[in-house]
Amino acid sequence: MKTRDKIIQASIELFNEQGERNVTTNHIAAHLAISPGNLYYHFRNKEDIILSIYEEYARSLLLETLSKVPEEDKPLDALVLYMDSVFQTTMKFRFFYSNLPVLLDKNPSLREKYVEVQQSISERVSHLLISLRAAEIIDFPDDSLADIVSILRLINTFWVSFYQTQTIVNEVNDSVFYQGVLKILVILRPYTKEHAIDELNKACEFYQQRYQEAVEAVPA
Amino acid sequence: MKTRDKIIQASIELFNEQGERNVTTNHIAAHLAISPGNLYYHFRNKEDIILSIYEEYARSLLLETLSKVPEEDKPLDALVLYMDSVFQTTMKFRFFYSNLPVLLDKNPSLREKYVEVQQSISERVSHLLISLRAAEIIDFPDDSLADIVSILRLINTFWVSFYQTQTIVNEVNDSVFYQGVLKILVILRPYTKEHAIDELNKACEFYQQRYQEAVEAVPA
Repeated sequence: MKTRDKIIQASIELFNEQGERNVTTNHIAAHLAISPGNLYYHFRNKEDIILSIYEEYARSLLLETLSKVPEEDKPLDALVLYMDSVFQTTMKFRFFYSNLPVLLDKNPSLREKYVEVQQSISERVSHLLISLRAAEIIDFPDDSLADIVSILRLINTFWVSFYQTQTIVNEVNDSVFYQGVLKILVILRPYTKEHAIDELNKACEFYQQRYQEAVEAVPA
Repeated sequence: MKTRDKIIQASIELFNEQGERNVTTNHIAAHLAISPGNLYYHFRNKEDIILSIYEEYARSLLLETLSKVPEEDKPLDALVLYMDSVFQTTMKFRFFYSNLPVLLDKNPSLREKYVEVQQSISERVSHLLISLRAAEIIDFPDDSLADIVSILRLINTFWVSFYQTQTIVNEVNDSVFYQGVLKILVILRPYTKEHAIDELNKACEFYQQRYQEAVEAVPA
Protein backbone atom coordinates (compact mmCIF):
# COMPACT_ATOMS: atom_id res chain seq x y z
CA MET A 1 0.00 0.00 0.00
CA LYS A 2 1.19 3.53 -0.77
CA THR A 3 1.95 5.83 2.18
CA ARG A 4 -0.94 8.08 1.27
CA ASP A 5 -3.41 5.18 1.43
CA LYS A 6 -1.86 3.88 4.64
CA ILE A 7 -2.43 7.30 6.23
CA ILE A 8 -6.06 7.29 5.12
CA GLN A 9 -6.75 3.76 6.37
CA ALA A 10 -5.03 4.37 9.72
CA SER A 11 -6.92 7.64 10.14
CA ILE A 12 -10.32 6.00 9.54
CA GLU A 13 -9.44 3.35 12.11
CA LEU A 14 -8.11 5.77 14.74
CA PHE A 15 -10.92 8.28 14.23
CA ASN A 16 -13.55 5.55 14.67
CA GLU A 17 -11.87 4.05 17.72
CA GLN A 18 -10.77 7.16 19.58
CA GLY A 19 -12.96 9.91 18.12
CA GLU A 20 -11.70 12.24 15.41
CA ARG A 21 -11.34 15.08 17.89
CA ASN A 22 -8.89 13.13 20.05
CA VAL A 23 -6.61 12.09 17.20
CA THR A 24 -3.94 14.49 15.89
CA THR A 25 -1.78 14.18 12.79
CA ASN A 26 1.09 13.34 15.18
CA HIS A 27 -0.88 10.39 16.55
CA ILE A 28 -1.51 9.14 13.03
CA ALA A 29 2.18 9.47 12.07
CA ALA A 30 3.29 7.72 15.30
CA HIS A 31 0.78 4.92 14.72
CA LEU A 32 2.25 4.30 11.27
CA ALA A 33 5.84 4.84 12.47
CA ILE A 34 6.40 7.56 9.89
CA SER A 35 7.66 11.08 10.52
CA PRO A 36 5.18 13.96 10.82
CA GLY A 37 7.05 15.50 7.87
CA ASN A 38 6.24 12.48 5.74
CA LEU A 39 2.54 12.83 6.67
CA TYR A 40 2.59 16.56 5.84
CA TYR A 41 4.09 15.73 2.46
CA HIS A 42 0.79 13.97 1.66
CA PHE A 43 -1.75 16.06 3.62
CA ARG A 44 -1.71 19.68 4.73
CA ASN A 45 -3.58 18.99 7.98
CA LYS A 46 -6.25 16.81 9.59
CA GLU A 47 -9.09 18.55 7.71
CA ASP A 48 -7.32 17.64 4.49
CA ILE A 49 -7.23 13.95 5.56
CA ILE A 50 -10.96 14.03 6.41
CA LEU A 51 -11.77 15.66 3.09
CA SER A 52 -9.81 12.92 1.29
CA ILE A 53 -11.53 10.19 3.30
CA TYR A 54 -14.89 11.56 2.24
CA GLU A 55 -13.87 12.35 -1.32
CA GLU A 56 -12.05 9.13 -2.13
CA TYR A 57 -13.83 6.58 0.04
CA ALA A 58 -17.22 7.48 1.49
CA ARG A 59 -18.36 9.54 -1.48
CA SER A 60 -17.33 7.00 -4.09
CA LEU A 61 -18.91 4.22 -2.00
CA LEU A 62 -22.18 6.16 -1.76
CA LEU A 63 -22.23 7.10 -5.42
CA GLU A 64 -21.19 3.62 -6.57
CA THR A 65 -24.06 2.02 -4.69
CA LEU A 66 -26.34 4.08 -6.95
CA SER A 67 -25.41 1.81 -9.83
CA LYS A 68 -24.60 -1.42 -7.94
CA VAL A 69 -28.09 -2.01 -6.51
CA PRO A 70 -30.03 -4.47 -8.75
CA GLU A 71 -32.72 -3.37 -11.14
CA GLU A 72 -36.23 -2.91 -9.87
CA ASP A 73 -37.84 -6.21 -10.79
CA LYS A 74 -37.89 -6.69 -7.00
CA PRO A 75 -38.49 -3.12 -5.86
CA LEU A 76 -38.68 -3.89 -2.11
CA ASP A 77 -35.34 -5.68 -2.18
CA ALA A 78 -33.88 -2.87 -4.26
CA LEU A 79 -34.87 -0.23 -1.68
CA VAL A 80 -33.77 -2.32 1.31
CA LEU A 81 -30.43 -3.22 -0.27
CA TYR A 82 -29.84 0.40 -1.12
CA MET A 83 -30.55 1.49 2.46
CA ASP A 84 -28.32 -1.38 3.63
CA SER A 85 -25.44 0.01 1.53
CA VAL A 86 -25.89 3.53 2.84
CA PHE A 87 -25.92 2.19 6.44
CA GLN A 88 -22.71 0.29 5.75
CA THR A 89 -21.08 3.57 4.81
CA THR A 90 -22.25 5.27 8.01
CA MET A 91 -20.85 2.31 10.02
CA LYS A 92 -17.51 2.31 8.21
CA PHE A 93 -17.07 6.08 8.62
CA ARG A 94 -18.99 6.54 11.85
CA PHE A 95 -16.52 9.10 13.22
CA PHE A 96 -17.68 11.30 10.35
CA TYR A 97 -21.40 11.04 11.11
CA SER A 98 -20.99 11.42 14.87
CA ASN A 99 -20.18 15.10 14.52
CA LEU A 100 -21.32 15.77 11.01
CA PRO A 101 -22.66 19.35 11.39
CA VAL A 102 -19.39 20.34 13.09
CA LEU A 103 -17.14 18.79 10.44
CA LEU A 104 -19.15 20.33 7.59
CA ASP A 105 -19.04 23.77 9.21
CA LYS A 106 -15.25 23.58 9.42
CA ASN A 107 -14.74 22.62 5.81
CA PRO A 108 -16.72 24.22 2.98
CA SER A 109 -15.28 21.88 0.29
CA LEU A 110 -16.38 18.91 2.35
CA ARG A 111 -19.84 20.41 2.78
CA GLU A 112 -20.18 20.97 -0.94
CA LYS A 113 -19.34 17.32 -1.71
CA TYR A 114 -21.53 16.02 1.08
CA VAL A 115 -24.56 18.04 -0.05
CA GLU A 116 -24.07 16.83 -3.63
CA VAL A 117 -24.06 13.17 -2.50
CA GLN A 118 -27.14 13.78 -0.34
CA GLN A 119 -29.00 15.08 -3.35
CA SER A 120 -28.15 11.92 -5.33
CA ILE A 121 -29.31 9.75 -2.44
CA SER A 122 -32.58 11.70 -2.18
CA GLU A 123 -33.28 11.27 -5.86
CA ARG A 124 -32.48 7.57 -5.72
CA VAL A 125 -34.66 6.97 -2.65
CA SER A 126 -37.57 8.90 -4.23
CA HIS A 127 -37.23 6.86 -7.37
CA LEU A 128 -37.20 3.58 -5.40
CA LEU A 129 -40.29 4.59 -3.40
CA ILE A 130 -42.15 5.50 -6.58
CA SER A 131 -41.22 2.08 -8.05
CA LEU A 132 -42.55 0.39 -4.90
CA ARG A 133 -45.81 2.28 -5.27
CA ALA A 134 -46.03 1.47 -8.99
CA ALA A 135 -45.59 -2.22 -8.11
CA GLU A 136 -48.48 -1.80 -5.62
CA ILE A 137 -46.34 -2.89 -2.67
CA ILE A 138 -46.78 0.34 -0.74
CA ASP A 139 -49.04 3.33 -1.08
CA PHE A 140 -48.60 6.96 -0.04
CA PRO A 141 -50.00 10.30 -1.20
CA ASP A 142 -47.79 12.33 -3.56
CA ASP A 143 -47.41 15.15 -1.07
CA SER A 144 -45.86 12.78 1.49
CA LEU A 145 -43.06 11.57 -0.78
CA ALA A 146 -40.50 14.26 0.11
CA ASP A 147 -41.18 13.82 3.84
CA ILE A 148 -40.82 10.03 3.73
CA VAL A 149 -37.55 10.42 1.83
CA SER A 150 -36.26 12.90 4.44
CA ILE A 151 -37.18 10.59 7.30
CA LEU A 152 -35.51 7.57 5.70
CA ARG A 153 -32.36 9.59 5.08
CA LEU A 154 -32.37 11.05 8.57
CA ILE A 155 -32.52 7.51 10.00
CA ASN A 156 -29.78 6.41 7.63
CA THR A 157 -27.54 9.30 8.60
CA PHE A 158 -28.01 9.36 12.36
CA TRP A 159 -29.04 5.86 13.43
CA VAL A 160 -25.49 4.91 14.47
CA SER A 161 -25.06 8.21 16.35
CA PHE A 162 -28.42 7.74 18.02
CA TYR A 163 -27.52 4.22 19.11
CA GLN A 164 -24.22 5.46 20.52
CA THR A 165 -26.03 7.95 22.76
CA GLN A 166 -28.59 5.60 24.29
CA THR A 167 -26.47 3.53 26.64
CA ILE A 168 -23.77 4.05 29.23
CA VAL A 169 -21.34 1.88 27.27
CA ASN A 170 -20.75 3.10 23.74
CA GLU A 171 -19.96 -0.03 21.74
CA VAL A 172 -20.77 -0.42 18.08
CA ASN A 173 -20.82 -3.76 16.29
CA ASP A 174 -22.64 -5.16 13.26
CA SER A 175 -25.84 -5.71 15.23
CA VAL A 176 -26.28 -1.91 15.30
CA PHE A 177 -26.18 -1.82 11.54
CA TYR A 178 -28.88 -4.52 11.20
CA GLN A 179 -31.07 -2.71 13.73
CA GLY A 180 -30.79 0.36 11.50
CA VAL A 181 -32.02 -1.50 8.42
CA LEU A 182 -34.89 -2.91 10.50
CA LYS A 183 -35.92 0.67 11.39
CA ILE A 184 -36.33 1.41 7.68
CA LEU A 185 -38.73 -1.54 7.44
CA VAL A 186 -40.66 -0.19 10.45
CA ILE A 187 -41.17 3.06 8.54
CA LEU A 188 -42.38 1.21 5.45
CA ARG A 189 -44.73 -1.17 7.27
CA PRO A 190 -47.79 1.09 7.71
CA TYR A 191 -47.59 2.11 4.03
CA THR A 192 -47.44 -1.53 2.89
CA LYS A 193 -50.46 -2.97 1.09
CA GLU A 194 -52.02 -6.03 2.67
CA HIS A 195 -51.07 -8.46 -0.09
CA ALA A 196 -47.42 -7.38 0.21
CA ILE A 197 -47.09 -7.76 4.00
CA ASP A 198 -45.60 -11.26 3.60
CA GLU A 199 -42.85 -9.87 1.42
CA LEU A 200 -42.10 -7.17 3.99
CA ASN A 201 -42.09 -9.77 6.77
CA LYS A 202 -39.58 -11.84 4.81
CA ALA A 203 -37.23 -8.88 4.61
CA CYS A 204 -37.72 -8.28 8.36
CA GLU A 205 -36.97 -11.91 9.17
CA PHE A 206 -33.83 -11.79 7.06
CA TYR A 207 -32.45 -8.80 8.98
CA GLN A 208 -33.69 -10.12 12.35
CA GLN A 209 -31.67 -13.27 11.65
CA ARG A 210 -28.55 -11.26 10.75
CA TYR A 211 -29.10 -9.15 13.85
CA GLN A 212 -29.29 -12.24 16.10
CA GLU A 213 -26.16 -13.69 14.54
CA ALA A 214 -24.31 -10.43 15.05
CA VAL A 215 -25.39 -10.23 18.71
CA GLU A 216 -24.22 -13.80 19.30
CA ALA A 217 -20.89 -13.15 17.56
CA VAL A 218 -19.98 -10.44 20.11
CA PRO A 219 -17.75 -11.88 22.87
CA ALA A 220 -19.45 -11.54 26.27
CA MET B 1 -27.52 37.93 36.97
CA LYS B 2 -24.78 36.13 38.88
CA THR B 3 -21.42 35.64 37.15
CA ARG B 4 -21.94 31.87 37.07
CA ASP B 5 -25.25 32.27 35.20
CA LYS B 6 -23.77 34.88 32.89
CA ILE B 7 -21.02 32.43 31.95
CA ILE B 8 -23.58 29.73 31.22
CA GLN B 9 -25.80 32.00 29.12
CA ALA B 10 -22.87 33.41 27.14
CA SER B 11 -21.51 29.90 26.57
CA ILE B 12 -24.81 28.63 25.16
CA GLU B 13 -24.94 31.61 22.82
CA LEU B 14 -21.31 31.35 21.66
CA PHE B 15 -21.42 27.55 21.30
CA ASN B 16 -24.57 27.76 19.15
CA GLU B 17 -23.22 30.59 17.00
CA GLN B 18 -19.62 29.53 16.53
CA GLY B 19 -19.66 25.81 17.34
CA GLU B 20 -18.60 24.46 20.74
CA ARG B 21 -15.33 23.21 19.31
CA ASN B 22 -14.27 26.70 18.19
CA VAL B 23 -15.02 28.42 21.49
CA THR B 24 -12.48 28.29 24.34
CA THR B 25 -12.91 29.36 27.96
CA ASN B 26 -10.75 32.38 27.06
CA HIS B 27 -13.24 33.39 24.37
CA ILE B 28 -16.07 33.12 26.86
CA ALA B 29 -14.21 35.22 29.46
CA ALA B 30 -13.29 37.84 26.85
CA HIS B 31 -16.89 38.00 25.61
CA LEU B 32 -18.08 38.75 29.16
CA ALA B 33 -15.14 41.08 29.89
CA ILE B 34 -14.15 39.03 32.92
CA SER B 35 -10.73 37.53 33.67
CA PRO B 36 -10.02 33.85 32.83
CA GLY B 37 -9.27 33.44 36.57
CA ASN B 38 -12.79 34.59 37.41
CA LEU B 39 -14.21 32.03 34.97
CA TYR B 40 -12.03 29.27 36.47
CA TYR B 41 -13.30 30.21 39.91
CA HIS B 42 -16.75 29.02 38.72
CA PHE B 43 -15.86 26.21 36.28
CA ARG B 44 -12.84 23.90 36.07
CA ASN B 45 -12.86 23.76 32.26
CA LYS B 46 -15.11 23.81 29.20
CA GLU B 47 -16.41 20.27 29.85
CA ASP B 48 -17.51 21.46 33.26
CA ILE B 49 -19.48 24.33 31.64
CA ILE B 50 -21.14 21.92 29.19
CA LEU B 51 -22.04 19.54 32.01
CA SER B 52 -23.63 22.42 33.92
CA ILE B 53 -25.54 23.59 30.84
CA TYR B 54 -26.99 20.12 30.47
CA GLU B 55 -27.51 19.52 34.17
CA GLU B 56 -29.06 22.87 35.09
CA TYR B 57 -30.79 23.89 31.87
CA ALA B 58 -31.44 21.24 29.23
CA ARG B 59 -32.06 18.40 31.67
CA SER B 60 -34.42 20.36 33.89
CA LEU B 61 -36.23 21.67 30.80
CA LEU B 62 -36.64 18.14 29.47
CA LEU B 63 -37.73 16.70 32.78
CA GLU B 64 -40.05 19.62 33.55
CA THR B 65 -41.89 19.17 30.28
CA LEU B 66 -42.82 15.72 31.57
CA SER B 67 -45.17 17.35 34.02
CA LYS B 68 -46.04 20.56 32.12
CA VAL B 69 -47.76 18.90 29.15
CA PRO B 70 -51.55 18.82 29.69
CA GLU B 71 -53.40 15.71 30.75
CA GLU B 72 -54.48 13.28 28.11
CA ASP B 73 -58.09 14.29 27.52
CA LYS B 74 -56.72 15.37 24.12
CA PRO B 75 -54.09 12.69 23.55
CA LEU B 76 -52.99 13.85 20.09
CA ASP B 77 -52.37 17.39 21.33
CA ALA B 78 -50.57 15.99 24.36
CA LEU B 79 -48.14 13.99 22.21
CA VAL B 80 -47.57 16.80 19.72
CA LEU B 81 -47.02 19.40 22.46
CA TYR B 82 -44.60 17.09 24.20
CA MET B 83 -42.61 16.57 20.99
CA ASP B 84 -42.75 20.32 20.43
CA SER B 85 -41.15 20.89 23.86
CA VAL B 86 -38.39 18.37 23.20
CA PHE B 87 -37.67 20.03 19.84
CA GLN B 88 -37.47 23.41 21.55
CA THR B 89 -34.73 22.02 23.75
CA THR B 90 -32.76 20.69 20.79
CA MET B 91 -33.05 24.12 19.13
CA LYS B 92 -31.99 26.02 22.23
CA PHE B 93 -28.98 23.77 22.84
CA ARG B 94 -28.27 22.80 19.27
CA PHE B 95 -24.49 22.95 19.73
CA PHE B 96 -24.96 20.04 22.12
CA TYR B 97 -26.90 17.84 19.70
CA SER B 98 -24.68 18.61 16.71
CA ASN B 99 -21.86 16.50 18.11
CA LEU B 100 -23.68 14.56 20.76
CA PRO B 101 -21.82 11.21 20.54
CA VAL B 102 -18.50 13.08 20.78
CA LEU B 103 -19.51 15.17 23.81
CA LEU B 104 -20.92 12.15 25.65
CA ASP B 105 -17.76 10.12 25.00
CA LYS B 106 -15.65 12.88 26.51
CA ASN B 107 -17.68 13.18 29.68
CA PRO B 108 -19.03 10.12 31.54
CA SER B 109 -21.06 12.21 34.05
CA LEU B 110 -22.75 13.97 31.16
CA ARG B 111 -23.47 10.63 29.47
CA GLU B 112 -25.01 9.27 32.63
CA LYS B 113 -27.38 12.24 32.96
CA TYR B 114 -28.22 12.22 29.29
CA VAL B 115 -29.08 8.51 29.27
CA GLU B 116 -31.28 8.98 32.33
CA VAL B 117 -33.24 11.78 30.63
CA GLN B 118 -33.57 9.70 27.46
CA GLN B 119 -35.15 6.90 29.45
CA SER B 120 -37.73 9.30 30.92
CA ILE B 121 -38.52 10.62 27.46
CA SER B 122 -38.93 7.06 26.11
CA GLU B 123 -41.33 6.15 28.87
CA ARG B 124 -43.32 9.30 28.36
CA VAL B 125 -43.56 8.88 24.59
CA SER B 126 -44.61 5.21 24.99
CA HIS B 127 -47.27 6.25 27.44
CA LEU B 128 -48.57 8.97 25.11
CA LEU B 129 -48.71 6.56 22.14
CA ILE B 130 -50.61 4.01 24.21
CA SER B 131 -53.10 6.74 25.22
CA LEU B 132 -53.53 7.66 21.56
CA ARG B 133 -54.27 4.04 20.74
CA ALA B 134 -56.68 3.68 23.67
CA ALA B 135 -58.52 6.78 22.38
CA GLU B 136 -58.72 5.01 18.98
CA ILE B 137 -56.89 7.81 17.22
CA ILE B 138 -54.03 5.63 16.00
CA ASP B 139 -53.44 1.93 15.85
CA PHE B 140 -50.23 -0.11 15.88
CA PRO B 141 -49.28 -3.66 16.91
CA ASP B 142 -47.73 -4.06 20.38
CA ASP B 143 -44.44 -5.26 18.98
CA SER B 144 -44.01 -2.01 17.00
CA LEU B 145 -44.28 0.31 20.00
CA ALA B 146 -40.60 0.32 20.97
CA ASP B 147 -39.56 0.93 17.35
CA ILE B 148 -41.99 3.80 16.85
CA VAL B 149 -40.76 5.39 20.09
CA SER B 150 -37.13 5.06 18.93
CA ILE B 151 -37.90 6.61 15.57
CA LEU B 152 -39.77 9.57 17.12
CA ARG B 153 -36.89 10.17 19.53
CA LEU B 154 -34.28 9.84 16.79
CA ILE B 155 -36.12 12.50 14.78
CA ASN B 156 -36.43 14.68 17.88
CA THR B 157 -32.73 14.36 18.66
CA PHE B 158 -31.22 14.77 15.20
CA TRP B 159 -33.68 16.74 13.10
CA VAL B 160 -31.85 20.04 13.65
CA SER B 161 -28.48 18.39 12.90
CA PHE B 162 -29.94 16.77 9.80
CA TYR B 163 -31.33 20.08 8.59
CA GLN B 164 -27.95 21.74 9.13
CA THR B 165 -26.24 19.22 6.86
CA GLN B 166 -28.59 19.43 3.89
CA THR B 167 -27.71 22.78 2.42
CA ILE B 168 -24.65 24.79 1.50
CA VAL B 169 -25.64 27.57 3.88
CA ASN B 170 -26.12 26.42 7.46
CA GLU B 171 -28.73 28.74 8.91
CA VAL B 172 -31.15 27.74 11.62
CA ASN B 173 -34.30 29.68 12.50
CA ASP B 174 -37.70 28.80 13.97
CA SER B 175 -38.94 27.41 10.67
CA VAL B 176 -36.56 24.46 11.18
CA PHE B 177 -38.18 23.71 14.49
CA TYR B 178 -41.71 23.70 13.00
CA GLN B 179 -40.55 21.43 10.17
CA GLY B 180 -39.33 19.00 12.84
CA VAL B 181 -42.72 18.87 14.55
CA LEU B 182 -44.33 18.31 11.15
CA LYS B 183 -42.06 15.28 10.60
CA ILE B 184 -43.50 13.72 13.78
CA LEU B 185 -46.98 14.12 12.28
CA VAL B 186 -45.77 12.47 9.07
CA ILE B 187 -44.71 9.44 11.14
CA LEU B 188 -48.10 9.28 12.87
CA ARG B 189 -50.21 9.71 9.72
CA PRO B 190 -50.19 6.13 8.39
CA TYR B 191 -51.10 4.81 11.86
CA THR B 192 -54.01 7.23 12.18
CA LYS B 193 -57.53 5.82 12.04
CA GLU B 194 -59.79 7.19 9.34
CA HIS B 195 -62.19 9.00 11.68
CA ALA B 196 -59.24 10.82 13.32
CA ILE B 197 -57.57 12.06 10.14
CA ASP B 198 -59.30 15.46 10.45
CA GLU B 199 -57.81 15.92 13.90
CA LEU B 200 -54.35 15.04 12.57
CA ASN B 201 -54.83 17.43 9.65
CA LYS B 202 -55.73 20.21 12.07
CA ALA B 203 -52.46 19.70 13.94
CA CYS B 204 -50.59 19.71 10.60
CA GLU B 205 -52.28 22.94 9.51
CA PHE B 206 -51.40 24.57 12.81
CA TYR B 207 -47.68 23.81 12.41
CA GLN B 208 -47.73 24.56 8.66
CA GLN B 209 -49.06 28.00 9.55
CA ARG B 210 -46.34 28.55 12.19
CA TYR B 211 -43.77 27.31 9.67
CA GLN B 212 -44.96 29.80 7.03
CA GLU B 213 -44.90 32.66 9.51
CA ALA B 214 -41.39 31.73 10.59
CA VAL B 215 -40.17 31.60 6.97
CA GLU B 216 -41.70 35.03 6.28
CA ALA B 217 -40.15 36.49 9.46
CA VAL B 218 -36.60 35.72 8.22
CA PRO B 219 -35.06 38.81 6.58
CA ALA B 220 -34.22 38.07 2.92
